[in-house]
Amino acid sequence: MSQAAVVLVSGGLDSATTLAIARDRGFDCYALSFAYGQRHQLELEAASQVAQHLGALAHRVMPIDLSMFGGSALTDASLAVPEAALDAPVDEAGAIPVTYVPARNTVFLSLALAWAETLQARHIFIGANAVDYSGYPDCRPEFLQAFEDMANLATKAAVEAQDASERLQIEAPLVAMTKAEIIQTGLQLGVDFALTLSCYQPDLHAQACGRCDSCRIRHQGFVACGVKDPTRYA
Amino acid sequence: MSQAAVVLVSGGLDSATTLAIARDRGFDCYALSFAYGQRHQLELEAASQVAQHLGALAHRVMPIDLSMFGGSALTDASLAVPEAALDAPVDEAGAIPVTYVPARNTVFLSLALAWAETLQARHIFIGANAVDYSGYPDCRPEFLQAFEDMANLATKAAVEAQDASERLQIEAPLVAMTKAEIIQTGLQLGVDFALTLSCYQPDLHAQACGRCDSCRIRHQGFVACGVKDPTRYA
Repeated sequence: MSQAAVVLVSGGLDSATTLAIARDRGFDCYALSFAYGQRHQLELEAASQVAQHLGALAHRVMPIDLSMFGGSALTDASLAVPEAALDAPVDEAGAIPVTYVPARNTVFLSLALAWAETLQARHIFIGANAVDYSGYPDCRPEFLQAFEDMANLATKAAVEAQDASERLQIEAPLVAMTKAEIIQTGLQLGVDFALTLSCYQPDLHAQACGRCDSCRIRHQGFVACGVKDPTRYA
Repeated sequence: MSQAAVVLVSGGLDSATTLAIARDRGFDCYALSFAYGQRHQLELEAASQVAQHLGALAHRVMPIDLSMFGGSALTDASLAVPEAALDAPVDEAGAIPVTYVPARNTVFLSLALAWAETLQARHIFIGANAVDYSGYPDCRPEFLQAFEDMANLATKAAVEAQDASERLQIEAPLVAMTKAEIIQTGLQLGVDFALTLSCYQPDLHAQACGRCDSCRIRHQGFVACGVKDPTRYA
């Protein structure tokens, strides 16, 4: 088996750090992004730059039209993106934010699994984080473990595995980190965060709005670790 | 919660029977097919006819280019489709057939889950069968159970579920049936199998080859239950 890993890369800060961690652990990294009907196609350009910057051996962008099913402010132009208060990325009642995309991480990990199988890769990296975005059910450790258990029953490689070391592993190294810890880790590993784009509603020049949940959490992270925020704001 | 169900419909015999079973159980059926880079786009026309014939409320065809990842005779034009002996749908060593598509059912069920979530549907039907196609790991009951467990940790609906009756269920009513039992069940529920297409390599007029694994298993099923085979052969 090769030491290849599939890494989900969105163009944002978290997945850039995740890719840097996978590279630092010695994996040959295959970056996977999705054009999933989201408003901000600019993030795919950021993903491409991040993949190149961090030495991915390949970068695939798979078109997948989740807007066919509707249901999220990120893919449905009729829903407004909320500009919540800094301390309330999840709404007041602790409910799931409307920016949630139905079954997103399940879909993305499944497609990563398909690529991993053809690459004979045993590792899939995802920048899921359960601290700042606790409203998303598919970012929690128990979900990620259940996906790994399922994947090990789903694939030819798993069926043919000779021992536990050949099990497929879902790696979510950021899952328990704060945003400040993610930024510090990325900086230590040489990530140029100026290449990344986190904003839910960037302008046509890929400049961040500075107001959406994602911008606020990101900026707060730079402030918390005492580093200059390299984000280009509109 | 509605009594909606998402039903994976390929255009073949198994998924047509599955759709008929879901309808018979009283569900409002939403049929989902995939254009996944397979050679036989004609199966999508069959899927459309089957969905209409069996009263699906909607039929979506999602393009998803699994050939981007390679690895199967069904999506990779450089690999030949095997014409195995009648009694050997799985190869002699019991190995997984080369017609296996990487992580196919994981990917298809994940996308069905996305639609189910926006429909507030708690049931996903799949025509998986572990008897005739035992070489596919993602057709086995243990895989389907693991997917269901994962799905119930993945979705907003599952997180907000008030009791066990609101759990998401993966329904695979054919999983333990022989091909003859599937055909008999379908006929009892009014399925017109002449609309279905099972062949891995139909001609341009959607006529079956009669030689590939899928054709042989299908024909053997009609013979076994003493019913005239309505398949149009080239």
